[in-house]
Amino acid sequence: MEIKSKIGNRIKELREVKQMSQKDLAYASDLDRSYIASVENGQRNISIVNIEKIAVALGVSLKEFFGNDKFDNDSTSS
Amino acid sequence: MEIKSKIGNRIKELREVKQMSQKDLAYASDLDRSYIASVENGQRNISIVNIEKIAVALGVSLKEFFGNDKFDNDSTSS
Repeated sequence: MEIKSKIGNRIKELREVKQMSQKDLAYASDLDRSYIASVENGQRNISIVNIEKIAVALGVSLKEFFGNDKFDNDSTSS
Repeated sequence: MEIKSKIGNRIKELREVKQMSQKDLAYASDLDRSYIASVENGQRNISIVNIEKIAVALGVSLKEFFGNDKFDNDSTSS
């Protein structure tokens, strides 16, 4: 799976665990709701600053955000 | 510390462990050497696709790349 989709899936997963809507996450991260939607759909080559904004809004560190099996064997992923 | 600097420091740290020069890393990640230098200097809001390219070139997964204390308490970092 492409990295942009992995990131989108991880954000959606964490957002749903926190029972936040995209609108809530957009507000908390000071980003546009449409941007959040496109990131979750794997359509954005998101920057590290925006990943951090979203992680902070979700209440997780980047270590926790990426500490997931989705990001395990990137060095061998196609 | 700002996230761009944390990323730069982590790349430099891993690169030196692998005894790679910036030129080696640039070649292996198919990125410009000057880009690698500016990322390591914390001057770039690097995208996730480029972080993955660099991680693959360094032989680590994104989970390993971010599995470092630098990225621990982002949710509380200023």
